[in-house]
This record gives sequence, structure tokens and C-alpha cells, in this order.
Amino acid sequence: MTVTLIIGYIAAVLGMVAWVPQAIQVWRTGDSRSLSLPANLLFLATVIMWLVYGVLVMDWPIILANVVATACMIAIVAAKLKFG
Amino acid sequence: MTVTLIIGYIAAVLGMVAWVPQAIQVWRTGDSRSLSLPANLLFLATVIMWLVYGVLVMDWPIILANVVATACMIAIVAAKLKFG
Repeated sequence: MTVTLIIGYIAAVLGMVAWVPQAIQVWRTGDSRSLSLPANLLFLATVIMWLVYGVLVMDWPIILANVVATACMIAIVAAKLKFG
Repeated sequence: MTVTLIIGYIAAVLGMVAWVPQAIQVWRTGDSRSLSLPANLLFLATVIMWLVYGVLVMDWPIILANVVATACMIAIVAAKLKFG
């Protein structure tokens, strides 16, 4: 495996798990005041589009990474809508 | 251009601009309490890795998208470290 491919996989794995701590924190604390709703909606749209793209090209790493990220972003946006 | 490619480009553009509103909000309000530092550090690492990947494969759309995202994430992490 080339260095380039390894860096790509590291980026994909980091991107998959990055928003898990935010989803946990916002639901544990009930505090979402400093979260930007437009930013989180835009990023939810981003990961949904990547998920659709992954399905269209049948690329399992893209699909898996963006299923996890989409679940996190839905949890974060839901918390923002609930807690304000 | 295929539908698949169009969806990929939409995802790339959304991902480029998604965190701009968060960076603006956190610096305008000085409030970063509900932002997760681990999540934002993980996502900063993610976009830096995608940027390095983009440079290694000399893919200008990946480079451009992740230069903007890296700048936003540096601004957000810096605000979190400053405001707590």
C-alpha cells in the first residue's frame, strides 16, 4: 500500500469518527447554544451527498464512513433543534 | 457529466463551505462552550489529512475544498481554546 493510500484511509477513518464526541457531548449536557445550526445542516447535507455518491459508485469505505457520520450529524442537528 | 459526478461535486462544495458559519458564529459570539474540543480536533486532523492526500495526488478540487475547511477548523479550534 502506498503512503498516499494510507493517508487517504487515515483521513476516511478520522472523518468517520470525528463527530461522535460532539454527538455524545450535546446529548449528555443538553447544551447546544454555541453550535451553528446552518453549519451543522450544511455538513449533514454534505455527508448525505457523500453517502449517495458512495452508493452510486458502490464504494464500501465511502458508504461506511458516511453512514456513521450521517448518524452523528442527525443526532447533533436533532439536539440543536431540541435544545436551541 | 454523469449524475454521480454532479453529486460528488455538490458534496465537495458543501463540505468546503459547511463550517464557515460555525467559524463566524463562534468568533462573533465568543461562546464555544457546547463545541466538543475532541470532535473539532479530530475533524481538523481529518481535513489536514485530506489536504495532504489532495497534494499527493495533485487533485485541485480536493486541495481547494480542504484548504477552506482547514482554515475554518483552525479558526474554530482556536476559538474553543481561547473561549473554553
